[in-house]
Amino acid sequence: MKLKNKDVWALPGGFVRKDKDVDDEAKAVLQERTGLTDIFLHQFHSFGSVSRQDPKHASDLVEMGVIDPTMEEWFKQRYVSIGYYALVEYSKVKLPIPDATSDYCSWVPINDLPKLVIDHESIIGKAHQTLKKELNYQPIGFNLLPELFTMPELQALYETLLQSKLDRRNFRRKMLAYGILIDTNQKREGVGHKAPILYRFDLEKYFSAIKDGFSSGW
Amino acid sequence: MKLKNKDVWALPGGFVRKDKDVDDEAKAVLQERTGLTDIFLHQFHSFGSVSRQDPKHASDLVEMGVIDPTMEEWFKQRYVSIGYYALVEYSKVKLPIPDATSDYCSWVPINDLPKLVIDHESIIGKAHQTLKKELNYQPIGFNLLPELFTMPELQALYETLLQSKLDRRNFRRKMLAYGILIDTNQKREGVGHKAPILYRFDLEKYFSAIKDGFSSGW
Repeated sequence: MKLKNKDVWALPGGFVRKDKDVDDEAKAVLQERTGLTDIFLHQFHSFGSVSRQDPKHASDLVEMGVIDPTMEEWFKQRYVSIGYYALVEYSKVKLPIPDATSDYCSWVPINDLPKLVIDHESIIGKAHQTLKKELNYQPIGFNLLPELFTMPELQALYETLLQSKLDRRNFRRKMLAYGILIDTNQKREGVGHKAPILYRFDLEKYFSAIKDGFSSGW
Repeated sequence: MKLKNKDVWALPGGFVRKDKDVDDEAKAVLQERTGLTDIFLHQFHSFGSVSRQDPKHASDLVEMGVIDPTMEEWFKQRYVSIGYYALVEYSKVKLPIPDATSDYCSWVPINDLPKLVIDHESIIGKAHQTLKKELNYQPIGFNLLPELFTMPELQALYETLLQSKLDRRNFRRKMLAYGILIDTNQKREGVGHKAPILYRFDLEKYFSAIKDGFSSGW
């Protein structure tokens, strides 16, 4: 989200209230901004270096009228931020709702990030790095693809996340070996002479692999 | 570590000082207790549910004389704990040093845990689950094995961490495919007629795989 009257952006976030679970607070932020519940939200890392202290940002918030001047000193302290990433199909989500500190929210491609406050750029980098590593041991795609999808559609999702092209045959072989796809015996009609097979996820196996990793691991 | 005069144990930990990096504080706790520096320490998850609140533990600490009674209310609040695991070869480490709250420290097998405070048992469970998943995309063994080691020694390490037996041929094939082992052209002598080959890690490739995952991934 773009901060009010500033040419600088920030990730959405919030404070954890004393009587709330940290995970629930993350879900609440997501729901407030996107209206979405029940989506994949994964805590990936906590950020707590002293260099996160940003007295200028605290002064800016006072100037914007977002925080009371009596809170300025408190806001100038170093925070520890617990990072979560969510996976959503952004075309299905209404544009996130700005909070009191921001002009507007928008989806931004990872290769074309605007200037971000504090260490938010490295938080995004760490989230992306984590996600890429996780592709090696757990599935992805549920909630990001239609219920029925083709192998090329699934491959395109991986290629987007990895930011690289994958070999079609290797991808197919590896993905089938994971045992999380069900061949629906249906084909996508009307896309040329070689209609691709439609798959869906075997959700029991899918979520078991999310929990414990693929059984084709060690 | 076993808490003073109680039949209950706790993971080592400490508070994060306002002017210190969270990662550095974790390193400091490790060093204080084990005398070790420069070892693999990995932040794996933060724990922040409200059910972590444990007023009884705060009262116990006052009773033990570990905290000042004026601090009791502060200690009764819910803490957010940022979990780190370290990998050490425990036979090479002196027995961890107890802090003011504990009688003594000891190494405990994961299958035979004593009663633990708050959610420390689930913290251990999460650490072990994370480590098992990570075996699927990044190497392990540096600092846990001698500089030169055999394939059966490396396999034994994996079997310990996974708590299951692995197939010898599959293990060897998969491990060699990762491209992180260097065949030293030496053999372990004096262990029967089939002396096993000694390997060492290619540290450049090893640490690159720690950072980005195995290149044999997607």
